[in-house]
Amino acid sequence: MDSIKYERGKLLLLDQTQLPIRIDYIECNDYICVADAIRTMKVRGAPAIGVAAAYGLVLAALEYQHLNKNDFLRKMEEAIMVLKQTRPTAVNLFWALDRLAKVLQKDLPVENLVDQMEKEAISIQEEDLAMNIKMGEYGKELIPYGATVLTHCNAGALATAGYGTALGVIRAAFKDGRIKMVFVDETRPLLQGARLTAFELMEEKVPVTLITDNMAAFFMQQDKIHCVLVGADRIAANGDVANKIGTYGLAVLARFHKIPFYVAAPQSTFDLSLNTGKDIPIEQRNPDEVRKIGQIWTAPKEVNVVNPAFDVTPHELVTAIITDKGIIKPDYSQNIKRLFS
Amino acid sequence: MDSIKYERGKLLLLDQTQLPIRIDYIECNDYICVADAIRTMKVRGAPAIGVAAAYGLVLAALEYQHLNKNDFLRKMEEAIMVLKQTRPTAVNLFWALDRLAKVLQKDLPVENLVDQMEKEAISIQEEDLAMNIKMGEYGKELIPYGATVLTHCNAGALATAGYGTALGVIRAAFKDGRIKMVFVDETRPLLQGARLTAFELMEEKVPVTLITDNMAAFFMQQDKIHCVLVGADRIAANGDVANKIGTYGLAVLARFHKIPFYVAAPQSTFDLSLNTGKDIPIEQRNPDEVRKIGQIWTAPKEVNVVNPAFDVTPHELVTAIITDKGIIKPDYSQNIKRLFS
Repeated sequence: MDSIKYERGKLLLLDQTQLPIRIDYIECNDYICVADAIRTMKVRGAPAIGVAAAYGLVLAALEYQHLNKNDFLRKMEEAIMVLKQTRPTAVNLFWALDRLAKVLQKDLPVENLVDQMEKEAISIQEEDLAMNIKMGEYGKELIPYGATVLTHCNAGALATAGYGTALGVIRAAFKDGRIKMVFVDETRPLLQGARLTAFELMEEKVPVTLITDNMAAFFMQQDKIHCVLVGADRIAANGDVANKIGTYGLAVLARFHKIPFYVAAPQSTFDLSLNTGKDIPIEQRNPDEVRKIGQIWTAPKEVNVVNPAFDVTPHELVTAIITDKGIIKPDYSQNIKRLFS
Repeated sequence: MDSIKYERGKLLLLDQTQLPIRIDYIECNDYICVADAIRTMKVRGAPAIGVAAAYGLVLAALEYQHLNKNDFLRKMEEAIMVLKQTRPTAVNLFWALDRLAKVLQKDLPVENLVDQMEKEAISIQEEDLAMNIKMGEYGKELIPYGATVLTHCNAGALATAGYGTALGVIRAAFKDGRIKMVFVDETRPLLQGARLTAFELMEEKVPVTLITDNMAAFFMQQDKIHCVLVGADRIAANGDVANKIGTYGLAVLARFHKIPFYVAAPQSTFDLSLNTGKDIPIEQRNPDEVRKIGQIWTAPKEVNVVNPAFDVTPHELVTAIITDKGIIKPDYSQNIKRLFS
């Protein structure tokens, strides 16, 4: 099931807030619609956000292609700004828009710019899928035969152009006969684990056990988990990893129980402009996500809430990072620089 | 708000599954109704379960008081068995029923036994409240002035005969000006933190911040939490603590972040017949509690789920246990034995 389908002037986004109950695509014909879908997490997952934003900018380009070049470029700047302001943490959003912005610098007529932007967006989508498949091939070697893997949130086909980052590795390892069971954290508040990851893995016939977030330690204590494997929203130059809230806690628990903790992310998730994870902005979302589940109040309506959507796992707790260029192990600062330069 | 109100032949139980949306009391006139309320967690919390079960047996005694003594005693045995089979982990249930069973051994006519059982049940309730107040006095000394305390699940007035174990300590410390903020884990799957603890503390005007379970590590990492304080369902002779699922993970996180981890529990929660926590039975509850929230499906209906309701925190991770007889620190085996003998 593709989360993002594009044809000229039309972007179909699978509404991930409705899964697994309803399979609904929303149709966007302009970039405002795409920005809204990103903000409200109808499309989510760092790589998928990047792909969607790129197509969003293409929709803007098509909308304003009748303008003279100066006006067109101004409109593009505006659209880039709106799209960049949707969500602050996942770097793939900025990375994808910057790739299209580079096209805009070319000394070409608007018509050609529009065509090249569209090609670039399609490339971003196609490359992402290819990178995920590569990560699967590299990463599966880390998974021992008969392993039970714990994952958090959704780093699957839905979160990417297809196949998935962490779930791509799980897919490849499963095909290889390495996976006995995948434990899936439900991932409050928005339940991407329960709603998306459990759903994706069941579709693939991968054995799944769904647990609440607070059960992970219990199963580690009982030696039921052989490794933790998650995606990432942004990775700093020193290997610090921003990912869905709860990831850092899992990394601490994994260290305490002497379980490897792996992160799978394509090159587009690395932000080498940031020395450490301390500089990664953490999105604070609407407190009602914690006070409610769906439309149901689960707490006093006036209760004070904080709702950080991400946390940062310091590189010291990361056993290895699986990328499309190979596996990175400590010393991260050195090895990240070497792999990507 | 009392969670348990008794008058001869009638037990009113505050339906905790409906809080904070509805304040409903259910009226039980026989022990089967009480057993059902315990099993379905309409009444929950280790000390409250003990009190409710004791009154449940009193209702059985009143129901069968017209029988001859042999038949009466057989009926009492039956009722004790049914009540004991409601939930396996919290030891207060067994402790309270054993107190009433001792009355049944007396060489007295049925009529007097019934009266003495009723007195004993009332004593259990009154003593529990008194023990909670004592724990508050002892425990508050552990809380530094200006502290932010993290608690899990509900160890409050609702979980006890009143005042609470962990929340009793928080109440006393707050009155003393020591508490700046209480972070409350929502405590999936049944959300006792969000529904009950947040509600109780707000009623008392204690500053509360509600978080999802997977956020605790994030706030510890940011030095926002000064101690963790929880209740207990059963404590073994060596100080291992069974409590709501998620407690063990918090203890590991607290250790990693060098934050004290405190447990508050009355003598009735200690089970000195068990050498270690390994022997404490862990209740496995209905998987739909994880697949649904209230009546809403939040995961694929057929997804495999495990739902352990409790975990065991090894004594090595416990900084101190606050009891009604004083504060216990390591060496637990020695100090628990000394305090309670």
